[in-house]
Amino acid sequence: MVSGLRVFSGNANQQLALEICQHLGQPLSPLEISRFSNDNLFVQIQENVRERDVFIVQPFTEPVSDHIMELMIAIDALRSASARRITAVIPYYSYARSDKKDAPRISITGRLIADLLQTSGANRVLTMDLHSDQVHGFFGIPVDHLTAIPLISDHFSRHYDLGDMVAVATDAGGAKRAGRFSERLNIPMAIIDKRRVSDTEVKQGHVVGDVKGRDAVIFEDEISTGGTLISTVNTLAKAGVRSIHAGAIHPVLCGAAVKNLSAADIETIVVTNTVAVPEDKRLAKIHQISVAPLLAEAIKRIHTGESVGALFS
Amino acid sequence: MVSGLRVFSGNANQQLALEICQHLGQPLSPLEISRFSNDNLFVQIQENVRERDVFIVQPFTEPVSDHIMELMIAIDALRSASARRITAVIPYYSYARSDKKDAPRISITGRLIADLLQTSGANRVLTMDLHSDQVHGFFGIPVDHLTAIPLISDHFSRHYDLGDMVAVATDAGGAKRAGRFSERLNIPMAIIDKRRVSDTEVKQGHVVGDVKGRDAVIFEDEISTGGTLISTVNTLAKAGVRSIHAGAIHPVLCGAAVKNLSAADIETIVVTNTVAVPEDKRLAKIHQISVAPLLAEAIKRIHTGESVGALFS
Amino acid sequence: MVSGLRVFSGNANQQLALEICQHLGQPLSPLEISRFSNDNLFVQIQENVRERDVFIVQPFTEPVSDHIMELMIAIDALRSASARRITAVIPYYSYARSDKKDAPRISITGRLIADLLQTSGANRVLTMDLHSDQVHGFFGIPVDHLTAIPLISDHFSRHYDLGDMVAVATDAGGAKRAGRFSERLNIPMAIIDKRRVSDTEVKQGHVVGDVKGRDAVIFEDEISTGGTLISTVNTLAKAGVRSIHAGAIHPVLCGAAVKNLSAADIETIVVTNTVAVPEDKRLAKIHQISVAPLLAEAIKRIHTGESVGALFS
Amino acid sequence: MVSGLRVFSGNANQQLALEICQHLGQPLSPLEISRFSNDNLFVQIQENVRERDVFIVQPFTEPVSDHIMELMIAIDALRSASARRITAVIPYYSYARSDKKDAPRISITGRLIADLLQTSGANRVLTMDLHSDQVHGFFGIPVDHLTAIPLISDHFSRHYDLGDMVAVATDAGGAKRAGRFSERLNIPMAIIDKRRVSDTEVKQGHVVGDVKGRDAVIFEDEISTGGTLISTVNTLAKAGVRSIHAGAIHPVLCGAAVKNLSAADIETIVVTNTVAVPEDKRLAKIHQISVAPLLAEAIKRIHTGESVGALFS
Amino acid sequence: MVSGLRVFSGNANQQLALEICQHLGQPLSPLEISRFSNDNLFVQIQENVRERDVFIVQPFTEPVSDHIMELMIAIDALRSASARRITAVIPYYSYARSDKKDAPRISITGRLIADLLQTSGANRVLTMDLHSDQVHGFFGIPVDHLTAIPLISDHFSRHYDLGDMVAVATDAGGAKRAGRFSERLNIPMAIIDKRRVSDTEVKQGHVVGDVKGRDAVIFEDEISTGGTLISTVNTLAKAGVRSIHAGAIHPVLCGAAVKNLSAADIETIVVTNTVAVPEDKRLAKIHQISVAPLLAEAIKRIHTGESVGALFS
Amino acid sequence: MVSGLRVFSGNANQQLALEICQHLGQPLSPLEISRFSNDNLFVQIQENVRERDVFIVQPFTEPVSDHIMELMIAIDALRSASARRITAVIPYYSYARSDKKDAPRISITGRLIADLLQTSGANRVLTMDLHSDQVHGFFGIPVDHLTAIPLISDHFSRHYDLGDMVAVATDAGGAKRAGRFSERLNIPMAIIDKRRVSDTEVKQGHVVGDVKGRDAVIFEDEISTGGTLISTVNTLAKAGVRSIHAGAIHPVLCGAAVKNLSAADIETIVVTNTVAVPEDKRLAKIHQISVAPLLAEAIKRIHTGESVGALFS
Repeated sequence: MVSGLRVFSGNANQQLALEICQHLGQPLSPLEISRFSNDNLFVQIQENVRERDVFIVQPFTEPVSDHIMELMIAIDALRSASARRITAVIPYYSYARSDKKDAPRISITGRLIADLLQTSGANRVLTMDLHSDQVHGFFGIPVDHLTAIPLISDHFSRHYDLGDMVAVATDAGGAKRAGRFSERLNIPMAIIDKRRVSDTEVKQGHVVGDVKGRDAVIFEDEISTGGTLISTVNTLAKAGVRSIHAGAIHPVLCGAAVKNLSAADIETIVVTNTVAVPEDKRLAKIHQISVAPLLAEAIKRIHTGESVGALFS
Repeated sequence: MVSGLRVFSGNANQQLALEICQHLGQPLSPLEISRFSNDNLFVQIQENVRERDVFIVQPFTEPVSDHIMELMIAIDALRSASARRITAVIPYYSYARSDKKDAPRISITGRLIADLLQTSGANRVLTMDLHSDQVHGFFGIPVDHLTAIPLISDHFSRHYDLGDMVAVATDAGGAKRAGRFSERLNIPMAIIDKRRVSDTEVKQGHVVGDVKGRDAVIFEDEISTGGTLISTVNTLAKAGVRSIHAGAIHPVLCGAAVKNLSAADIETIVVTNTVAVPEDKRLAKIHQISVAPLLAEAIKRIHTGESVGALFS
Repeated sequence: MVSGLRVFSGNANQQLALEICQHLGQPLSPLEISRFSNDNLFVQIQENVRERDVFIVQPFTEPVSDHIMELMIAIDALRSASARRITAVIPYYSYARSDKKDAPRISITGRLIADLLQTSGANRVLTMDLHSDQVHGFFGIPVDHLTAIPLISDHFSRHYDLGDMVAVATDAGGAKRAGRFSERLNIPMAIIDKRRVSDTEVKQGHVVGDVKGRDAVIFEDEISTGGTLISTVNTLAKAGVRSIHAGAIHPVLCGAAVKNLSAADIETIVVTNTVAVPEDKRLAKIHQISVAPLLAEAIKRIHTGESVGALFS
Repeated sequence: MVSGLRVFSGNANQQLALEICQHLGQPLSPLEISRFSNDNLFVQIQENVRERDVFIVQPFTEPVSDHIMELMIAIDALRSASARRITAVIPYYSYARSDKKDAPRISITGRLIADLLQTSGANRVLTMDLHSDQVHGFFGIPVDHLTAIPLISDHFSRHYDLGDMVAVATDAGGAKRAGRFSERLNIPMAIIDKRRVSDTEVKQGHVVGDVKGRDAVIFEDEISTGGTLISTVNTLAKAGVRSIHAGAIHPVLCGAAVKNLSAADIETIVVTNTVAVPEDKRLAKIHQISVAPLLAEAIKRIHTGESVGALFS
Repeated sequence: MVSGLRVFSGNANQQLALEICQHLGQPLSPLEISRFSNDNLFVQIQENVRERDVFIVQPFTEPVSDHIMELMIAIDALRSASARRITAVIPYYSYARSDKKDAPRISITGRLIADLLQTSGANRVLTMDLHSDQVHGFFGIPVDHLTAIPLISDHFSRHYDLGDMVAVATDAGGAKRAGRFSERLNIPMAIIDKRRVSDTEVKQGHVVGDVKGRDAVIFEDEISTGGTLISTVNTLAKAGVRSIHAGAIHPVLCGAAVKNLSAADIETIVVTNTVAVPEDKRLAKIHQISVAPLLAEAIKRIHTGESVGALFS
Repeated sequence: MVSGLRVFSGNANQQLALEICQHLGQPLSPLEISRFSNDNLFVQIQENVRERDVFIVQPFTEPVSDHIMELMIAIDALRSASARRITAVIPYYSYARSDKKDAPRISITGRLIADLLQTSGANRVLTMDLHSDQVHGFFGIPVDHLTAIPLISDHFSRHYDLGDMVAVATDAGGAKRAGRFSERLNIPMAIIDKRRVSDTEVKQGHVVGDVKGRDAVIFEDEISTGGTLISTVNTLAKAGVRSIHAGAIHPVLCGAAVKNLSAADIETIVVTNTVAVPEDKRLAKIHQISVAPLLAEAIKRIHTGESVGALFS
């Protein structure tokens, strides 16, 4: 057990926090979260944290507003309880998708939340696979930005024949991520180019690149309703692929996602556990890889001052 | 219509915002609030606000976390859309109750939210009847702090015989508020002193002051489950009061509040509309007074630079 | 002697600082405070403080402006002399009384001073019995807020017959504090309700609660001119109490306080030494309890990272 | 002439600033920039700017460090000369390329410069075609982010046969930008996928998408040495394209760029004038479109509080 | 009368504030300053200042700590009363003398006070003849730094024969100021070079430059005890000057200053009224020139956005 | 070797950084600085610095803008790489000369750069012989301000006959510095008083003080073009000095400095190595004293928490 290190968890993914603690060989520190009758949140740190090096695990899962508020209130409580350093561990930073102003008079909420966390008292952030790499720069405090792409690509390289495999990005914005994935597997890539058909019709996708007769692996950062994934499956099917698999970091799986994915023509979907998938949403075709060992190792290194970058070499 | 002034509303109490706009003689400005499939909020200001003097109405009602996040994202969008000045109009600032550290390692969340609003870009705040007057000092930005106590006390003085009336605070912490109310009506006051009976039993109340044979008006800042109110009714009944009425600013009315209040031995409950009371929660014995004229007048004066303090003289 | 810990004192209460150091078993560190001929203050830290954990003791006693300026200049000197952490120990934070806006266009100076201390370079604050608990939330830096109420209530429980004793708050605003005191002694409470008699006459007090034939203990946070105390004595005397005692945390005792209290019909006044009482102001009926052991213990725990909340359990 | 509006220019692109002023119908305001003998920069605002709404034009062109320092010193001078509002007009924000941490222990300098500009006193930024849209979120102050893509795509649609045209991104990271360009022209797209051939060899490009026999338009945000452009030309030539054109926003054109582009198998290169191209670097095949009308219109709208988003509808 | 402009005054120099208002043709706005019995200051702005352009006059005269606290509390009250802009008018900024670290572990209090004023809410500062020009740079907010040297040099050039006059600096640090004064009068200068005679003896002065048979004008920024002035008189007398006059901006005149100056061999002392000189301290040989017209003109220009620099041309 | 301490160097004076490391007995830590083709700087820290105490050496030498940008980017990279503390070691802070507003609408750039360094993430500064002592106060972070005057005065006292020596300041602004130098050597001083001869002619110098027949040592903080030095040589020659030497801290030596100084009638020029003097600019008459031992000792003391002030006693 590493001295002075404390790990807490909000309500968003306690299972992940417990796994991280197992890997660190220490218990999860106790934190009470409750609600007053007027729906105000109440958070109490239930152990002395003076001069301790504190990590608090909270991915931004549904209900997102509550989980963000929980995290900010807990960080404020930790700060005023005199923690020496507070690291917000946010394996899934959902608002990273609000990373640009693609419509007038909207908020770049990915930046706003970064500022709010700093105001709350966070000293550092540990996160994974942000929707775009640039979101890292939204933070004024140090960020360790891990990636689970190697975990997923290793899974494919160990269990599948890569001979005719092609990585597919679901749109131009995801080309870079799919490119990184395909480069690790040394397979070619393709992208779906979406175009508005007319003013009233929605956008339609065309495959850019060679997929015919190949085994496609659609690669995304998150699967929420699964809508994008399924429309990509359809586009690829029309283009004559042999088989379809998918990889994604964050299994948000909301709404009818599980039902739709179950019915879809996808053989396997490889994801991580940054987001907790409830028992009744687990499909046989969904393979979940734990990021707990990776996060535990990063926490240990941050605590002891070892290089975290070295994790990737 | 006052030029340059724009009023927006979040989802918390649109009815109140509309009433305010009626009093100002101008339409409510359009704002879109929606949710992405991963439960992220999306806010878009739907009208040019460059160099405008913007007010956004959002009491902190249930679901509180969502309403606070909505407000902060909207403020951020307004700021980046170049609004000249942004005033958060928060008639019910629920977290004002988290105003002190009465347990170890907790957050003074009333202060935290004040800081978060400032980080989001709020330039001023307009609020009403904060749980304690000191919460005003939690804000680093100018605050106009209105009170609806005169609206409620005027109601009693117009409609009731004050001859044998006594104002009752539900605990020592509320003595000051009840004192202010009783002074306006020139009636005596009493307070409920609560004591822990034993280590295992809950606290029990005793009346401090003369209430026997009198008409009691219990005065509070907010009614949420109604639990405090009802236990006070019981204590007063035992103490031999003639009749019981109640006054409160914020009708939070959650859980079984309406059902319990309906059954309780209270003749009338006078509240305001800082919190929207849904149709099905409206009891005949609950009388609601609108704060819209007061808020509209304050907004007009803030906008034109007239004295707001003068509202109270 | 705890290594790395340094305790300094301004001019406000050197005796208290010396006592604290005795309890810590280490000397008071030297600090020079003088004045230039143009009345500018000059402060010099007279010992190396690089990377040290520094505490500076300075209650806000008369002359308050000088003592606040001394403290801020000393903190600035400590910061630029590279102290690792600076804790302002302010046993009496006088401006906590300026905690709300009860008149138009005034300053909530309790918040302003909190901000100024932070700007000066204070990293933490250690204080006692703030006028209202909410003032804690005025600080953006961690605060340890101790209370001397147990010291005073223990004195009464050890030396007096509590059988017919009643705790009395001097106004509605003090009800909560007196309630806390009375609950520790398990005695009933009463409050003085003050009402304006007419537009020209000052307010007059009425007792709310049973005091007739009882031994009253008036409980306040501070005694300055003693005016409030003496008018309460008069009100209680008229209400037929048997005897009158008083308890208060901060013995400000300014102006004719000592002369008036000496003549007043109070048997004992129990206070602490957060404010130094000069030799010639010490009355036989004033009993002073030292807070030095409590502050020393808190300083030791802050320095070593032990729980301070545990001090109260 | 718009009253109260003042436009200044640093040394980076005075020609552009002058054109903007022509469109605004007002003279460029005078600013002296010189150097002390120790190479320190000296900037003097040479006209009263008290309470004026000031814009200062300075793209980040070579020598970049000097131009950034010039801009920051000028902004500081404007602020301390009491300008009411200072907008940094940075048509080419070169450090937007340093927008992520793709190697350990590097700076996200695009964010750093944003913070430095704010510290210097900038109140707003007006910029064009940032390397990635997310860089917008690096700024804590309002940003108006214009795009010149319509200017360039309109040029192609007016002067070229789009029948067999295909837009080409030089790598996966540029797919989104090329997609936006191709969507405006309603032509298909392709991307160059670059792969490391071996540990010692550099990366080699493969075309993803159909380009054979087509007229390719390579689309980038900036052309600096032209190296990427020329290697893309070679890859496309091998892939059997019919003709090659190029479009780019920022003509950085450093080193041997002009010489190499002159020799390369590209028919036309369409760029803007965000970066000044010196007389001797102007090739017949490089067509420059002025962004001055667009910037002038945006400045006018920011000054008068009209919608800037409306510029794009 | 200029609309929207309000001038307030603290207790430091009400006479000067009144004169400024006379020159502006408008009344001094009312401000109450009083003290609570615990020596806390209380400040109330007694007129609506919403959206007004407010100036508050307060030189840092004895008692300095009280006058600084008064100013900061007043600024805080103005800010929270929604003043549009607050300018602290500090004709004598006494702490400008604490402008460097010439001993270990001291505070550069001139910088600290600048930061505290900004924290309090000051938006600008208007000041005169800071001890060193560099103190201007201590402020993070815009400063207008006026000089009264022309007022004093003009007095000498109008009333004295400059033929054999020499300006004398009282030490090397004042050489620049005396040089500026002498240059305006086109007379030569000399300085007193002070050297420590031995470890136990104080420093002794030697004249550097020609003063024999000449009329010396000692020129300083402030006269406090007059000690420096009188020792310079003695040094000059020994060096054989014909007559001695003195000029200084700030007549602090504390302690035995007036008595000593009265007895000293100085013919005239020309000062300004940045510091109020009480009736009983006014010597016939002290000639006071009012800075009120200069400050009034600067206030008018700051308010209307005219160039203040132009005041000096 | 001191554990946890790391020293890096920018491009400004690597030789000095290496010497410092030799004195500390540890290697210089590796840092890559390069340029992208668009002239953007790229900095990479090439060794793990998590939780390390980092010093980075970078005087502000020509090209100044590049060296400042290099420093700021390196500091930002260090901060985001989780260095525990970052000290900017700036032996020559060139912008200290921009320390006041002696013309309208200019920047006090010495303050601006201080703020920019803090924004970049610097926690402390270690510097030498700032142009004026007040510049220390421009920094909001702790500064250790060393002086090399003892190194230079010791050189004169060891190698020269001080009997008829006089220290000469080149203008009134330098009187204090020359005074400090002359006091250490216990020799008299003189200053050059510069006056504008007419509106069209430049200023001309006159010697204030006795220099005839003496050995003059002109003492300055920096020598850039040498122009001031040479015009002082001429003035002194006319005034009949016997010999001329010079001392200065920072050998900027730009433009024709070396050529002109070579020809000038100065016997020796004693400087330090805060600024690197390239081989071809080294004259026999220029004697360079290394500040590396002094800086190394200060770094060691800062790292271990020993008194740095004690360096001077």
